[in-house]
Amino acid sequence: MNHKNFKIHSLGTPTVQSPLQLSKTKGDGVFNFISEDDRVLHDISTSNLKEYSSDHIEAMSMEKAGPREKVFFEAKETTAGIVTCGGLSPGINNVIRGIVMSLHYFYGVQKILGVPYGYEGLIPKYGHGFIKLTPEHVKNIHEFGGTILGSSRGAQSVPDMVDTIEKNKINMLFTIGGDGTLKGADAIGEEIRKRNINCAVIGIPKTIDNDINLIDKSFGFETAFDIANPIIKDAHNEATGAYNGVAIVKLMGRDSGFIAASAALSMPVVNFVLIPEMSFELEGENGLLEALKNRLLQKKHAVIVVAEGAGQHLFNATEQQKDASGNVLHKDIGILLKNKINEYFKTIQHPITVKYIDPSYIIRSAPANANDSVFCTRLAHFAVHGAMAGKTRFVVGMLNGKFVHIPINEVTNKRKKIDLEGDFWYSVRESTGQLFKI
Amino acid sequence: MNHKNFKIHSLGTPTVQSPLQLSKTKGDGVFNFISEDDRVLHDISTSNLKEYSSDHIEAMSMEKAGPREKVFFEAKETTAGIVTCGGLSPGINNVIRGIVMSLHYFYGVQKILGVPYGYEGLIPKYGHGFIKLTPEHVKNIHEFGGTILGSSRGAQSVPDMVDTIEKNKINMLFTIGGDGTLKGADAIGEEIRKRNINCAVIGIPKTIDNDINLIDKSFGFETAFDIANPIIKDAHNEATGAYNGVAIVKLMGRDSGFIAASAALSMPVVNFVLIPEMSFELEGENGLLEALKNRLLQKKHAVIVVAEGAGQHLFNATEQQKDASGNVLHKDIGILLKNKINEYFKTIQHPITVKYIDPSYIIRSAPANANDSVFCTRLAHFAVHGAMAGKTRFVVGMLNGKFVHIPINEVTNKRKKIDLEGDFWYSVRESTGQLFKI
Amino acid sequence: MNHKNFKIHSLGTPTVQSPLQLSKTKGDGVFNFISEDDRVLHDISTSNLKEYSSDHIEAMSMEKAGPREKVFFEAKETTAGIVTCGGLSPGINNVIRGIVMSLHYFYGVQKILGVPYGYEGLIPKYGHGFIKLTPEHVKNIHEFGGTILGSSRGAQSVPDMVDTIEKNKINMLFTIGGDGTLKGADAIGEEIRKRNINCAVIGIPKTIDNDINLIDKSFGFETAFDIANPIIKDAHNEATGAYNGVAIVKLMGRDSGFIAASAALSMPVVNFVLIPEMSFELEGENGLLEALKNRLLQKKHAVIVVAEGAGQHLFNATEQQKDASGNVLHKDIGILLKNKINEYFKTIQHPITVKYIDPSYIIRSAPANANDSVFCTRLAHFAVHGAMAGKTRFVVGMLNGKFVHIPINEVTNKRKKIDLEGDFWYSVRESTGQLFKI
Amino acid sequence: MNHKNFKIHSLGTPTVQSPLQLSKTKGDGVFNFISEDDRVLHDISTSNLKEYSSDHIEAMSMEKAGPREKVFFEAKETTAGIVTCGGLSPGINNVIRGIVMSLHYFYGVQKILGVPYGYEGLIPKYGHGFIKLTPEHVKNIHEFGGTILGSSRGAQSVPDMVDTIEKNKINMLFTIGGDGTLKGADAIGEEIRKRNINCAVIGIPKTIDNDINLIDKSFGFETAFDIANPIIKDAHNEATGAYNGVAIVKLMGRDSGFIAASAALSMPVVNFVLIPEMSFELEGENGLLEALKNRLLQKKHAVIVVAEGAGQHLFNATEQQKDASGNVLHKDIGILLKNKINEYFKTIQHPITVKYIDPSYIIRSAPANANDSVFCTRLAHFAVHGAMAGKTRFVVGMLNGKFVHIPINEVTNKRKKIDLEGDFWYSVRESTGQLFKI
Repeated sequence: MNHKNFKIHSLGTPTVQSPLQLSKTKGDGVFNFISEDDRVLHDISTSNLKEYSSDHIEAMSMEKAGPREKVFFEAKETTAGIVTCGGLSPGINNVIRGIVMSLHYFYGVQKILGVPYGYEGLIPKYGHGFIKLTPEHVKNIHEFGGTILGSSRGAQSVPDMVDTIEKNKINMLFTIGGDGTLKGADAIGEEIRKRNINCAVIGIPKTIDNDINLIDKSFGFETAFDIANPIIKDAHNEATGAYNGVAIVKLMGRDSGFIAASAALSMPVVNFVLIPEMSFELEGENGLLEALKNRLLQKKHAVIVVAEGAGQHLFNATEQQKDASGNVLHKDIGILLKNKINEYFKTIQHPITVKYIDPSYIIRSAPANANDSVFCTRLAHFAVHGAMAGKTRFVVGMLNGKFVHIPINEVTNKRKKIDLEGDFWYSVRESTGQLFKI
Repeated sequence: MNHKNFKIHSLGTPTVQSPLQLSKTKGDGVFNFISEDDRVLHDISTSNLKEYSSDHIEAMSMEKAGPREKVFFEAKETTAGIVTCGGLSPGINNVIRGIVMSLHYFYGVQKILGVPYGYEGLIPKYGHGFIKLTPEHVKNIHEFGGTILGSSRGAQSVPDMVDTIEKNKINMLFTIGGDGTLKGADAIGEEIRKRNINCAVIGIPKTIDNDINLIDKSFGFETAFDIANPIIKDAHNEATGAYNGVAIVKLMGRDSGFIAASAALSMPVVNFVLIPEMSFELEGENGLLEALKNRLLQKKHAVIVVAEGAGQHLFNATEQQKDASGNVLHKDIGILLKNKINEYFKTIQHPITVKYIDPSYIIRSAPANANDSVFCTRLAHFAVHGAMAGKTRFVVGMLNGKFVHIPINEVTNKRKKIDLEGDFWYSVRESTGQLFKI
Repeated sequence: MNHKNFKIHSLGTPTVQSPLQLSKTKGDGVFNFISEDDRVLHDISTSNLKEYSSDHIEAMSMEKAGPREKVFFEAKETTAGIVTCGGLSPGINNVIRGIVMSLHYFYGVQKILGVPYGYEGLIPKYGHGFIKLTPEHVKNIHEFGGTILGSSRGAQSVPDMVDTIEKNKINMLFTIGGDGTLKGADAIGEEIRKRNINCAVIGIPKTIDNDINLIDKSFGFETAFDIANPIIKDAHNEATGAYNGVAIVKLMGRDSGFIAASAALSMPVVNFVLIPEMSFELEGENGLLEALKNRLLQKKHAVIVVAEGAGQHLFNATEQQKDASGNVLHKDIGILLKNKINEYFKTIQHPITVKYIDPSYIIRSAPANANDSVFCTRLAHFAVHGAMAGKTRFVVGMLNGKFVHIPINEVTNKRKKIDLEGDFWYSVRESTGQLFKI
Repeated sequence: MNHKNFKIHSLGTPTVQSPLQLSKTKGDGVFNFISEDDRVLHDISTSNLKEYSSDHIEAMSMEKAGPREKVFFEAKETTAGIVTCGGLSPGINNVIRGIVMSLHYFYGVQKILGVPYGYEGLIPKYGHGFIKLTPEHVKNIHEFGGTILGSSRGAQSVPDMVDTIEKNKINMLFTIGGDGTLKGADAIGEEIRKRNINCAVIGIPKTIDNDINLIDKSFGFETAFDIANPIIKDAHNEATGAYNGVAIVKLMGRDSGFIAASAALSMPVVNFVLIPEMSFELEGENGLLEALKNRLLQKKHAVIVVAEGAGQHLFNATEQQKDASGNVLHKDIGILLKNKINEYFKTIQHPITVKYIDPSYIIRSAPANANDSVFCTRLAHFAVHGAMAGKTRFVVGMLNGKFVHIPINEVTNKRKKIDLEGDFWYSVRESTGQLFKI
């Protein structure tokens, strides 16, 4: 990865004066347009920076997001589309609302089309049609979880989708989705480029797992572990409610354990956190079962939080299944754990009671909490500013607390993971007192 | 069932003046002791009452609970025990707290023993010991779900338990549990009678399913559907989030569907409620699958709430399994439905997306909501008043809004069920617009 | 009050066959139409009933609510109106939704008018117009607190309102409101009778204070103390957070203390509950201030819950008080307590910290909790059944757990209050250990 | 302010090998000790950085927090003290818990003293004593708002406090508090230096207002606007519930409007946000009253969120009052607004209904939400690492997402404020469509 590549695609030079009443000078009490060469540094540790030259041309940085003085589109002739793909995540409706409100009120875009049921909605044969989105239509949707547009998984024909875009004269397509969705968006953008159409494609990264590369956090993630928090307390009640009670909570996290680790850290009654990033054994001296036995001997109850993608090496690697989006369908580690634990303690004649809790659908379908709500609204605003400026094939995201543009392909080529050598995971281990070797 | 039998067992004639500063006259602004012949009518419909004579001697009624002027026990010489059995239900800790506080502060009982892990705690071989309960110890426990005493399922030797009672000079045993627990309590009471020991046995009926016979409601039930309520909203978000989305929520209710029906009524986005009281078919013209298909054709999404005990006739009746408490272990109707629905729509080539949510452990381990909290505290107070008066082998419960005593065996010989011809079920059907025949 | 008077007014003999597919025989698994002479007994204590003759003709009872076999209105020619008056209470939107859904789906009434801003909406000069209510319009409103129709306080000209009813051919007016609203509804009903118009007037009693006479509870009340519950916990945190910390929470309750007492009972950290039904002194040996001092000496913190209508005798009827900003202080018992307590402890040189919390608007504007939601929906259904049967000038309410009709004037001639000699208040006193004489 | 000054005071050279089993090499899967010269850059915009030389010696940066290989204290001989001062904020108990747990379990410190009621607890004459803190004592306290130690406002004699520290051989004092507390901590540290005692003084900045200089956020702040969020929804229900309804919500924010602005952004039904950073007029063409009138003419309702420190210029500047901590006691802007708005609309004969909501005590006494809980725990861990290393007179805080040490006097010499020219405030203005000039 090379920072020199962090250049954002553009439909062309923006020549239209922005309708926003902003300023170009500091100190006048009015928000300033963002200059094209404002950038945000990626690595902010001074020791790492020392190796770069003083102009930082070599240090990785991202383009700052925000309203530009010149925009590319004339609002009154602009048609926007919004599509939501993949699984639910708290805050989707806040993002939709934010896009509609800022297109309408800030820039004066009148025609905004909701694309129903993900990329399917761009394929005529499904017959889903469009939903006309207006401020009146979206004003209360932030109160609800889910997505008012509906969603679907899986790829669709890129040329067919671009046909629909062309036919409906859509000038900007906001795609709210995860890895697969963003790859699709980039492919749409490439096809648009080939056809030389005036349509910007913007990605608003949505992954409840928080595993989008390069950015601080993805929307919905904080709400996710906010909702998981009392559920872990419930699990603790179940564990202590029985002699040698063991409660297992499976949380989302296909390839990274951010939700599991954060939830466990936020409700410090968890004794074991198992995440995809770590390898661990069930059996043997250093295995989970032995550690669990010791915990039970000592305290008579235990709480285990496991990310859905953890421990996949424990399954017989016969065949892998994938969902319609191409995500590897994990075998259920929660149920495996439950069964293995029951078997083991039966074998050693140590009576226990195991309770297994899988709250995934309850978490992902909830409305955004307050901090996520703020984040979603701001993401939406910044996405609209970038789109109006004619930028394309980028995502908006937060980097070190600032909103930036990143080329889609830079965030899709790798997933963010918990650094097992980092201070966050160390905090989790400190907090749980995790007793076994990983 | 004959009201003449609704007479409460007693350890003997109470002769000790109650330490409570109450009154015997109305109008003095001071709460009155309850007279032994105050009774509450069971059936309050005038048409049904017409058949009885004016003195109501024949109409079914229950003894009113409350503080008696003469009590049986001298507080300073009294040892009380509290035991919690069976599955968790919201409010157990409130009941424990209420018993401890009223024994201690109202009557001056100093020695209160918590029996750990259900009836196991009365069997020495488990080595659980006792937990000394004081106001300081219990003052904050109402904030927590679960039970601070721990619980267990299953019967234990009645003579052995009574040996423990005798050995520890326990004078009143408060048993908080469901059907099996109460039957055990009655057996303990009978053994105590035979041995002629001074120990009252009091049942505080706990069943989250709300299926205790003869009483208005059991504690924890209202909290249960209060917590299920937003989960059904989540299910609706999942259902509408996909094209032809179907969300199934399984709720508790082994033999009666009160939680499922109440939750569905409280969050009116549910299209089908399936409860143990009703019989229904999956296949055929009047079956659920056909009705579901019609619903999806019309609205593109559906929400199904199913009680765990519903549709047991749909399983191959090879063998029945029971849990340690003797409850029939139901096969998982939620998973059966999910599979059958997926199969059916695959067969008819009608693509759907099914999400299955089982929030049972999240619900039962939550702390009591405010109304349940009030109810639990009052139940506990009334249980203590009855125990101090030397009454035994009774439960405290609410009948038509009043607290009463009922002999344990009268509430355990039959379970309360939803009357499919009654107005409550009619409300549920009205609210869901349930499209198929039952 | 005489039970003989508990007869419901009627617009005439119902002659239209109900469109509901109900039954007339028990045991067929289908809900039965309710017979006109089904009644529910008011006093259900056997000792009180002894004085009546066996046919109970003299014992007070209420007409049972529910669908009648013959209805008065032809649905397709019927126009319904709904009006919400007075202060907010949780559940109003659930009631509106329930009325619209049952009129539309059960009976087929197509024309339903929402009257905006209370009785003002029936007076043309305000120019509020009507809101057309359809299932689509109301389907999500139960998620929101407040009232989608808006409300207003105060009486309007009865003849003018009836002019509007007549002009718009409204056949049934559902009035959701408190004492004043219901009196207004009865007056409208009387004017309608004089003019011989075919319009039923139905009251759905709304009082968050729970002080409607004769009925078990009013909707919104349980939600009210459910929301007050954690606020009292907050108050406790404030009280313990400072040395000699005193937290005062003022809750609703103009003439009766149900919310204050229930909230305190549900969150047992309250040391003093002050309600309108009781008289108490501030000063002197038996006064609150002395009791508070003793509490602080013992425990270093105290929580006081006061109903807004409590202690009105403590205000000097002549002089006005002003706050630091120079505003006239209305007779705010919370602020009076805060000031008097501060003064007293300053005088006796006993440093304390007083925090005053008034959460009233937060409580009344919340959406209904699950149990209230069920209650509101059922109230609405029963109101519609009564209206369709041509009954008028009645309220629907719950009596001993059953839904009944009561003539409006029977519930407005007196307010329900906490019986200071009853077991509920005794529970509150037991729970708080209220240290001072009342 | 000069970055060269961002050097942390130290009690001396750490010589004891850390008991933590960490690593010094990357890639071994074990968390590394933090090197003394790891620093985090403050300004991360490349354009601003260009002016510095490549070694960044001149660019402002902060010392990275975390465990050091050599520590200063021998755990077994170490006594720690924890004191909480000032007003409540969500998360205090989480911080206390985190400090106790990490001192005890990571480093093996056995003696931890809770100082009751703020700095008062260090002054013998108050007679508060100490509270012995153990893991058992603190394990559940994160479930509760407030502070288990109690708090107080106001300065105490620094020499007297240091006498207590000396007498009790306290080696590290964790002070959890705001501006005044931190200044006190620095003074204590200076006195300790003069006396040459081995006691580290650590500040954990607590301000619900989020106005601590130089750091990303203070704990409790996110929870604060998370709790304010539904209250604003309630306010909206009140506003729409009446014709021309106006709801005013006053939120915390003495000198900066972060809570008000964030809460309004998170619940986008707010029409006006008034914060201390902005100046605004009530009267005149550009005043709030005129803007409010226009809003009401258009939409018939309005919601105003006002920070407690806003609009202080509207009061007659006769005299300033301060609380015991030295904070300026603001006159109540909420009540002023309510009165002025009522007066104005009475004058122009435009009937309105104003509701005023002040939820401050409800917000600050709540327990931390999940994200704040994670943050508090980690802050506590980092504070302990710094203390063990013998660092003193510093605060732990988060800078651009990394935990750092900052000298106390650098964060107390100025308050953080919302930049009215920045993108956050612009988002707020965009979201509210704030109609009037500021």
